[in-house]
Amino acid sequence: MEGRGGLTDEEVSAACKEGDAITKDYMMQQTMLRVKDPARSLDFYTRILGMTLLQKIDFPSMRFTLYFLGYEEKSEIPGDIKERTAWTFSRRATIELTHNWGSESDERHIGIAVPDVYAACKLFEEQKVTFVKKPDSGKMKDLAFVQDPDGYWIEIFSPNNMVSLMSP
Amino acid sequence: MEGRGGLTDEEVSAACKEGDAITKDYMMQQTMLRVKDPARSLDFYTRILGMTLLQKIDFPSMRFTLYFLGYEEKSEIPGDIKERTAWTFSRRATIELTHNWGSESDERHIGIAVPDVYAACKLFEEQKVTFVKKPDSGKMKDLAFVQDPDGYWIEIFSPNNMVSLMSP
Repeated sequence: MEGRGGLTDEEVSAACKEGDAITKDYMMQQTMLRVKDPARSLDFYTRILGMTLLQKIDFPSMRFTLYFLGYEEKSEIPGDIKERTAWTFSRRATIELTHNWGSESDERHIGIAVPDVYAACKLFEEQKVTFVKKPDSGKMKDLAFVQDPDGYWIEIFSPNNMVSLMSP
Repeated sequence: MEGRGGLTDEEVSAACKEGDAITKDYMMQQTMLRVKDPARSLDFYTRILGMTLLQKIDFPSMRFTLYFLGYEEKSEIPGDIKERTAWTFSRRATIELTHNWGSESDERHIGIAVPDVYAACKLFEEQKVTFVKKPDSGKMKDLAFVQDPDGYWIEIFSPNNMVSLMSP
């Protein structure tokens, strides 16, 4: 529309709703960025931006590696690998650098941590949310991807499930 | 390289460094996503994902609007607009929905909140980081954009400066 500005305050109020009670413990957990040269990226995000590498997770059969970084104290990283995975996926505001071995792509997504993936997805279905992957399909069970209105992927997962999912 | 996998643990250790002491209070503050239809997006991020609208900021002269959302208690949002802006930009892990009136683009960035933009940028210069915008150039003073090794933009700002910057 020519001359159309942004939404008015009234339109904003009408557009914003209360989330279902189930969303109370949802958490903004990750922003995923694909990287081409992980050594350069790790140097940049740790040395220049001062983040800490929380965990490196290799998926040799699928030929990719995830590097989770965030502003956390190194001393708080659990030594036990299972504890560490649960800890990593329950930190707020992490960066998930994804390195596809020998390939590149510009996809990006955010990830929301929820207490119960199936309960969240049942509600998403009722709410007619578009699914990229339902939690009971594909290789990675208990993990879902939905789309926002612009088609951005949003990963839906539960921190505790990630322990078994991240042990490929 | 054919058959080349991800980095070895040794390569990861070598790539990760300690950040300068100045980075101690840096914070992962925002993930920016451009949206086409803010009413649909606000409905989705509040009703479906359970986020709260923290603040709407209009820039009529530049024809865009920012909508910050996050997992915060509505009751904690300051009533005073200046306090609110400082509060919004000091929340961790927000989503910044950017609506360009009548235009579209697929740029995305993350934003790091730092205590002192000029001190951080002085160090970035010494570290040979690529700048998209230095804090003393352009219309928006005290705000910088640098690039990571993949060319992703990273906004560098101080929560307190945003009060004046966001009053266009």
